[in-house]
Amino acid sequence: MHKRSYKIAIIGAGNVGTHLVKALEYAGHPVVEVYSRDLRNAKQLTLGSYNAKATNELDFSKSQAEVFLIAVKDDAIEEVVREIVLPERAIVAHTSGAKPLSVLQYLPNDRGVFYPVQTFSKHKKINFEQLPICIEGDSEATVQVLAELAKSLSSSVYIVNSEQRKALHVAAVFACNFSNHLIKIAKDIVVTEEMNFDILKPLIIETIDKALITSPEQSQTGPAVRRDTSTISTHLAFLKGNEELQTIYQVLTESIMETYE
Amino acid sequence: MHKRSYKIAIIGAGNVGTHLVKALEYAGHPVVEVYSRDLRNAKQLTLGSYNAKATNELDFSKSQAEVFLIAVKDDAIEEVVREIVLPERAIVAHTSGAKPLSVLQYLPNDRGVFYPVQTFSKHKKINFEQLPICIEGDSEATVQVLAELAKSLSSSVYIVNSEQRKALHVAAVFACNFSNHLIKIAKDIVVTEEMNFDILKPLIIETIDKALITSPEQSQTGPAVRRDTSTISTHLAFLKGNEELQTIYQVLTESIMETYE
Repeated sequence: MHKRSYKIAIIGAGNVGTHLVKALEYAGHPVVEVYSRDLRNAKQLTLGSYNAKATNELDFSKSQAEVFLIAVKDDAIEEVVREIVLPERAIVAHTSGAKPLSVLQYLPNDRGVFYPVQTFSKHKKINFEQLPICIEGDSEATVQVLAELAKSLSSSVYIVNSEQRKALHVAAVFACNFSNHLIKIAKDIVVTEEMNFDILKPLIIETIDKALITSPEQSQTGPAVRRDTSTISTHLAFLKGNEELQTIYQVLTESIMETYE
Repeated sequence: MHKRSYKIAIIGAGNVGTHLVKALEYAGHPVVEVYSRDLRNAKQLTLGSYNAKATNELDFSKSQAEVFLIAVKDDAIEEVVREIVLPERAIVAHTSGAKPLSVLQYLPNDRGVFYPVQTFSKHKKINFEQLPICIEGDSEATVQVLAELAKSLSSSVYIVNSEQRKALHVAAVFACNFSNHLIKIAKDIVVTEEMNFDILKPLIIETIDKALITSPEQSQTGPAVRRDTSTISTHLAFLKGNEELQTIYQVLTESIMETYE
């Protein structure tokens, strides 16, 4: 199959922008412009590229780019939208999981969302091939172009509307932000008792492994699902004096008990 | 260094017992007896072994074993303790994370705990070399024997008293049982909106990776730590009608906000 290559402009030189530039060029799409408010950031990103021009101006009226990907922080999208000038025929998409498609509504272009479902750090490699990318577009044609672009990076491309993407974002808060916080709580408990956090790590890895390979329902263990009220009481007594942790323990224990009635 | 080999008896042919038999034999310790209430389970475990004898009787007065490892379910430990007859010189240890050393107090032997910090499934391989094993003993000598045994299986051996082990257990409930439940909640949200749970998996894996490789404090992301109250309100509105999830969302969001003040 002949793969179409698209000329791309990346707006934003942060974590997402950095990874997108590399992945898109690697997939054969010339990145022709990289924008950052701070020109130095944009320049650093274009260093290894044949085509890319760094810029700190949002007037792209003369740009050759066919697809503009806005990869700035959520709060900065609206400002970019107010100031950016795009060539008429270009498609513009933002890359945010939290913002609806409608934040782009005042742009006269074809609009969409190109949302890679991952947490990016600048210096940590990401395997794009397995990376879910969620696409939304204001028309079939826009969806098709963005999906084609996504498929050239990843085998895991989903068409997801704004309402679904909001659900995905809420779900990610539960599965990622909150889980991370529970791991922090566990670390604190272990360290307070003069043990090494390393003791817990293989158990955490295996738990998550099981949840993802089989299913979290099948792999639920612990005193709550066993209805082992004597252990639960022991644990709550252990947490005495820390109301916050007691509350978290109780709320999640009750939720598990209600789930597996 | 010359490694001492110990003759072992395993009491219990469940998940932990199964993995212990294999790991101990592999490390050069002959497993001479395997007990299960159901003789067939014990027999299945001794099938591949040169030395091991299967039994469903708890009279070990004539056993050659030097170390008895009780690997039955937490609730069954006390019953085993009441019924078991041990050779005088043998060390006896239980393998439970939740039970104190004192559950063995009525046995006239040297007593200890040999607790592998992992969640075992019968048919999933476990890498014992990296597996934390927590040791406790009623004397220096007991600790030394059990620690030596543990070190022949794993490079990650810790001396941990009953109070610390209780803390470890509480910590594991937060980091593992509760995280697993949050992943289940996330899955439900995603599936309800007709999306595939697979969309979330790479994000979950990367989140846990970061938490364990750097630290959960450094990798906390999301609306709570950003104090992004507008996103938090949007999420709570999305969860409208599900009081349980709203409560979990609120309690964990407040806890994150208080942690990163």
